[in-house]
Amino acid sequence: MKLGKLLYTGKAKDIYKTDNPDEVIIRFRDDITAGDGEKHDKIPMKGYYNSIISAKFFEVLEAAGIKTHYITLVKPGYILARKLEMIPIEVIARNIATGSLTRRYPFKEGQEFKEPIIQMDYKSDEYGDPMLNDDIAVALGFTTMDELDKMRKITLKVNNILKGFLKERGLLLPDFKLEFGRYNSKILVGDEISPDTCRLWEMKTRKTLDKDLFRRGEGGVIDAYRIVASLILDDRDKKRWKLEDDLL
Amino acid sequence: MKLGKLLYTGKAKDIYKTDNPDEVIIRFRDDITAGDGEKHDKIPMKGYYNSIISAKFFEVLEAAGIKTHYITLVKPGYILARKLEMIPIEVIARNIATGSLTRRYPFKEGQEFKEPIIQMDYKSDEYGDPMLNDDIAVALGFTTMDELDKMRKITLKVNNILKGFLKERGLLLPDFKLEFGRYNSKILVGDEISPDTCRLWEMKTRKTLDKDLFRRGEGGVIDAYRIVASLILDDRDKKRWKLEDDLL
Repeated sequence: MKLGKLLYTGKAKDIYKTDNPDEVIIRFRDDITAGDGEKHDKIPMKGYYNSIISAKFFEVLEAAGIKTHYITLVKPGYILARKLEMIPIEVIARNIATGSLTRRYPFKEGQEFKEPIIQMDYKSDEYGDPMLNDDIAVALGFTTMDELDKMRKITLKVNNILKGFLKERGLLLPDFKLEFGRYNSKILVGDEISPDTCRLWEMKTRKTLDKDLFRRGEGGVIDAYRIVASLILDDRDKKRWKLEDDLL
Repeated sequence: MKLGKLLYTGKAKDIYKTDNPDEVIIRFRDDITAGDGEKHDKIPMKGYYNSIISAKFFEVLEAAGIKTHYITLVKPGYILARKLEMIPIEVIARNIATGSLTRRYPFKEGQEFKEPIIQMDYKSDEYGDPMLNDDIAVALGFTTMDELDKMRKITLKVNNILKGFLKERGLLLPDFKLEFGRYNSKILVGDEISPDTCRLWEMKTRKTLDKDLFRRGEGGVIDAYRIVASLILDDRDKKRWKLEDDLL
């Protein structure tokens, strides 16, 4: 693996050029942030777990026919991916009411929705990630009605796939966030899919196994991420990615 | 006119029963509020102007085929209307970027949109009128996808009709808010349409002639409302509604 020039540095990941102009390497850092970046810390091994969890989720999605930016996990911490022109929208799917939804609207904490709720936010620390609707997203020049429709449909499919995959492994998926980008004339799922971007609850106890532990200052973050990794990775993954047993 | 029992009292209007269970009388009070009711004042004659302006707008809409709750202006201050089962959603149409839109998103103040933006907010002082999307509005049990679609289409029609009517009278319509209710199996436009619920700008100078004067504490509120009334009412309106000349 040869990292090229640093193209972009985000709150928890860096994007590096590669020899191929259509591909980048994503480095998962140990930084963790919340509240539009106001709360910040470093948690050793977080980048390690998020990269392998993301790689697994992307492979599950690709196997089910969803097009993503993922090419391969180069080694823990580093994913080789297609270089996307990112759309500055966070597409959120919600299955269970929690977090900002119960603060903003009269939903009951833990209430399960008959149909998943799709929500789109403008990805902007400056503006505090405000919620969008289709008209506003198009008027801002971020996207088109056609792309919005595609993102919504892909997100609903991803929700079904991940919910089913996680259910078999004893995990609930209350909600998660996707980001999309353009690659040639296609819309691909980009960014990461990890306990930083998903709410993941232990099915029986509804115990939190995601970034909410950090948001609430509860600790036990890395233990939770390791549990998630150990539940979703199989022996084949551990072998081909050369993961040390004591880390899972 | 005989006012029956007080059915409901809002921030600026009271709703009274009539002898007919399907009809109510809406009394327009002089109260004016902003910031989810945090800022409050009484402005003499405000109810008078808002009632006649609303009556005129409703008549313009009815004449163009839009179904509303409006039956007649009983006398200034009082509108006889169909009794609706209100939907707790504020449907906003925006033609020019201003107000909360430019605070929440990177729009330029005064920027005109190619296509009107439709936005729906949950009408709730407790929750601060948060923005909705279709999925959230349906999950909250407020409405159905079919009703949302109808409200959106009616609002776009109302926008075209009012924009054209106001343009001929030297006024711009940057944005406005509608509320809808159910009557038998139909969706009707309810509430009021006035300088409390519309932004209205003098076309040439872009001078504000609406509740923004109150929000900003600039004064001249009642003068602005009188100017709007005088621009949109014709001699026939003044005669049939017995409006005194020195009030217009």
